Amino acid sequence: MNIHLQGTAASPGIAIAKVYRLQAAAQEPLRITVADPAAEILRLREAVKQAKADIELIRVQTLERLGERKAEIFEAHLFLLDDPELIEAAEERITEDKINAETAVHEVATGIAELLRSMDDELLRERAADVGDVSGRVISKLVGRQHSALSELSEEAILVAADLTPSDTAQLDLNYVRGFITEIGSRTSHSAIMARSLELPAVVGMGLQAKRIETGMTVILDAVLGSVIVEPTEQELTDYRERKRAYEENVARMRSFVDRPSLSADGHEVELAANIGSVEDLAKVLENGADGIGLFRTEFLYMGRSSLPTEEEQFTVYRHVLEKMNGKRVVIRTLDIGGDKELPYMDLPKESNPFLGQRAIRLCLNQDELFRVQLRALLRASAYGKLAIMFPMIAVVDELGAAKRIVEEERVKLEAASIAVSDEIEIGIMIEIPAAALNAGALAREADFFSIGTNDLIQYTMAADRMNESVAYLYQPHHPSILRLVDMVIQAAQRNGRWTGMCGEMAGDADAIPLLLGLGLHEFSMSASSILPARELISRLSREECASLARQALDLGSQAEVLSLVRQHQSRSEH
Amino acid sequence: MNIHLQGTAASPGIAIAKVYRLQAAAQEPLRITVADPAAEILRLREAVKQAKADIELIRVQTLERLGERKAEIFEAHLFLLDDPELIEAAEERITEDKINAETAVHEVATGIAELLRSMDDELLRERAADVGDVSGRVISKLVGRQHSALSELSEEAILVAADLTPSDTAQLDLNYVRGFITEIGSRTSHSAIMARSLELPAVVGMGLQAKRIETGMTVILDAVLGSVIVEPTEQELTDYRERKRAYEENVARMRSFVDRPSLSADGHEVELAANIGSVEDLAKVLENGADGIGLFRTEFLYMGRSSLPTEEEQFTVYRHVLEKMNGKRVVIRTLDIGGDKELPYMDLPKESNPFLGQRAIRLCLNQDELFRVQLRALLRASAYGKLAIMFPMIAVVDELGAAKRIVEEERVKLEAASIAVSDEIEIGIMIEIPAAALNAGALAREADFFSIGTNDLIQYTMAADRMNESVAYLYQPHHPSILRLVDMVIQAAQRNGRWTGMCGEMAGDADAIPLLLGLGLHEFSMSASSILPARELISRLSREECASLARQALDLGSQAEVLSLVRQHQSRSEH
Repeated sequence: MNIHLQGTAASPGIAIAKVYRLQAAAQEPLRITVADPAAEILRLREAVKQAKADIELIRVQTLERLGERKAEIFEAHLFLLDDPELIEAAEERITEDKINAETAVHEVATGIAELLRSMDDELLRERAADVGDVSGRVISKLVGRQHSALSELSEEAILVAADLTPSDTAQLDLNYVRGFITEIGSRTSHSAIMARSLELPAVVGMGLQAKRIETGMTVILDAVLGSVIVEPTEQELTDYRERKRAYEENVARMRSFVDRPSLSADGHEVELAANIGSVEDLAKVLENGADGIGLFRTEFLYMGRSSLPTEEEQFTVYRHVLEKMNGKRVVIRTLDIGGDKELPYMDLPKESNPFLGQRAIRLCLNQDELFRVQLRALLRASAYGKLAIMFPMIAVVDELGAAKRIVEEERVKLEAASIAVSDEIEIGIMIEIPAAALNAGALAREADFFSIGTNDLIQYTMAADRMNESVAYLYQPHHPSILRLVDMVIQAAQRNGRWTGMCGEMAGDADAIPLLLGLGLHEFSMSASSILPARELISRLSREECASLARQALDLGSQAEVLSLVRQHQSRSEH
Repeated sequence: MNIHLQGTAASPGIAIAKVYRLQAAAQEPLRITVADPAAEILRLREAVKQAKADIELIRVQTLERLGERKAEIFEAHLFLLDDPELIEAAEERITEDKINAETAVHEVATGIAELLRSMDDELLRERAADVGDVSGRVISKLVGRQHSALSELSEEAILVAADLTPSDTAQLDLNYVRGFITEIGSRTSHSAIMARSLELPAVVGMGLQAKRIETGMTVILDAVLGSVIVEPTEQELTDYRERKRAYEENVARMRSFVDRPSLSADGHEVELAANIGSVEDLAKVLENGADGIGLFRTEFLYMGRSSLPTEEEQFTVYRHVLEKMNGKRVVIRTLDIGGDKELPYMDLPKESNPFLGQRAIRLCLNQDELFRVQLRALLRASAYGKLAIMFPMIAVVDELGAAKRIVEEERVKLEAASIAVSDEIEIGIMIEIPAAALNAGALAREADFFSIGTNDLIQYTMAADRMNESVAYLYQPHHPSILRLVDMVIQAAQRNGRWTGMCGEMAGDADAIPLLLGLGLHEFSMSASSILPARELISRLSREECASLARQALDLGSQAEVLSLVRQHQSRSEH
């Protein structure tokens, strides 16, 4: 039986191997009334002790193999086993209901997990997986069952399971495991995150169709496309062995760019920076050899909480990021809230067209106490690295002037209080409003740098909400009108001795990079995983040829014409 | 007692005269039980007959003095007196309730007027005034009272009244009446409309403060600012005599431009066209000597009803407008609905950012049957005048191509059915999206003309909802970024032998006109009342000087700098 299945690609890669199916997760234990609850409690404590020893062992192994960050999961598991909400609650239930320890642990854990899952918070929902993992391990000890059969593995295999618990994933023997397939889960579940760390191909969220895959079957796991071929044909095997080879060669090639400078084939240097949304993203940034951070979105500091973050909380985060980046530039964007991004505790008025409303700098200038707190935190953090402050949604020169005056006022206050503030902070703006691009000359006299925010710039230039499906056809990053605005911005910056970056999705797009390089873009800021492919691509491009390509593109009349021009150029340079 | 009062300017002008206070409107008549209802009915019929004779007399006078359109009000009054809902209903009430005719008419009329006033339709609410006027006249006849005391007037006077009925206004003796002041009413009430036709200064909606003005007092009526000075000082009188003289000289000067070509001081010809929203607006267009219609918004045909208008209904309206314009160009914009302008019977989906949603041409291309009905009506009407069809909200060339293909398909079908369609229809587009302005070169190869819609263009270029007060400071028509887009559009059109118009509010703005003339705008389309001032202004401007002014403005960095440049230029040319 040759079947093709589709799931969600959670960690890229291609694997071809026989399947090893993990036994299903622990069933609901049998509910038994016990005569001696005290003995049952002792049995539970012994099981908890054994579980803790196992977890500690796994924690140490994980620390060695995968590093501190992954091992933290098991520290959290150890804490859980000391949490009175879980084990003490189970003991009380044993005493009161005179039931066996397995049932007590299962019931208490299920209750906690359900509560966590009902929360509107992704992190808390993830904790539910940890509670299930830990309680399952204790129950296994109670029934004398091996918690995981992964140690049985003695040949190359692709694992198939309902889901992998964090401890399953941590125990994977990378000598044998070639990838995994799960029925549940998404790109953001623990197992998906672990798969990416381990660089194991994984397809998750396959649903019930994964039940058709049994131990011993051969599968092709294409975790680039998210597809699985069960019992492939000879032709499919031949094709995929070639694809796998090419893919891995490409990955290896990309990895070789980690420590190289970002240089074009003709020796023109650019900066390839990363966009981050939280401190969690830093590891990836460092792993992928980013030249800096081109956009640190600070909204996460304000969201998912019930009041504004304090100056101290913000300072700690900004300082941490600056220190970790170790002298490389970190562009921190001031709060881009309002409009569609709401903060429940701020009670902003409803607007008919929030994307055209009082967002970002408009809100910050209107409610400047909010703004000043963030600026003070930024100014204080500036002493710990190379900080650039960036204002979002600047439309006219007056707004930039007003924002800069507030920065100066706060700097003066801090210096009067003898708090160190760097003298070398760059102050720049996002260019994401057509009026700003069209008036970049005047803005360049006031801003140290520009960063083009293509997501919004395209939305406004096309007058098409980027979240509205019915006008999605107008979201055209390669449209000549967009390129003309980008060109105006870069030219104006160059005339005034400023640098221009780009922090929208377009900056990491392979069809856009030759044009942007040609137009003279200096800094390309993108998701960390796009940096190495971009560096590799740029190393093959001639800046001079790209400049002439970009000039041609500026004279075209549609996105289709531009794309066709760029792709012709690319296929010519590949042959 | 010198008092300054403020109302609503309903018809511009300045008057200085003594007050004549009109007696209050008919009081509620005394309710009397009658012994002989039949005799009462005969008395009512006699009163109706007299009222009809009066109305007919007024109608003829009005026809002579004010023309057919104003006289139509009295035709409507005559119809009302034949309406069974009014007089027959009053007769029934006399018979049933055995009451006097005055009370019967008053009660029936009050009921009808209240019903009309409760409707959510401005025209119906206006009809309530007519019912009150007509029934008041019949009641006056019944009680033997003069309906209006206007005939007493034998010297110059400013009338003060609670309100003026349509027949009051029509009977005004222009030899003596210099203006009027009313307690109630708005710019759109019958008396305000009549005042503008009669070119009598009027301030309406003064409220109870107008009760302080009595017959014989001197007042200055400033219906430019909407203010009234009661018993002015000598200094105020001196000042206002001078202001009045200057104002009237200016009006006379404007009127002298009605039949002149729209020429700059150095002989450059432009077109000054009118924006209209319905057939009702045509009279004003003709009165003000418009060179054509630059924007006919067709939305009114679709709004305030419960289903889509038929092809026939639309054809009738388009043909009427084309015929009335007698060979002058009429630019009709296809349906600009969706987003904020909703049609309840179409059930369009709610959008988070309607201004960035599926509006106008986007909706028409998506629901092309709706579009085809309108296009067929337009194509058929094209045989009756000089039609130009204009598509709103074009962002990319493909949309224009798709819309033009549909026009051609409908043309072919009509011609196959031997229906006459003009060969000379121009097909153009609104430029109101930044992407379209930036890509005007490619669009100019496909469009016969451009019309820049500044209201939306500014909104998108600034990313600021023009209906949102909190970002109103960003609505900057004179910002260099807007001027640069306008310049790009005009340049691209000229290179391709096309003409460019503008139909946003900016086209009639005295601070913008020198810049637009300088940039090479060909057609300025505005509200009819702005045409003569614009023509007068342009007659004083040198196209060549304006071109150099515009070039300077394009190099500036803010709206404030642009306005200061333009105003300096204007004050230089006035001295």
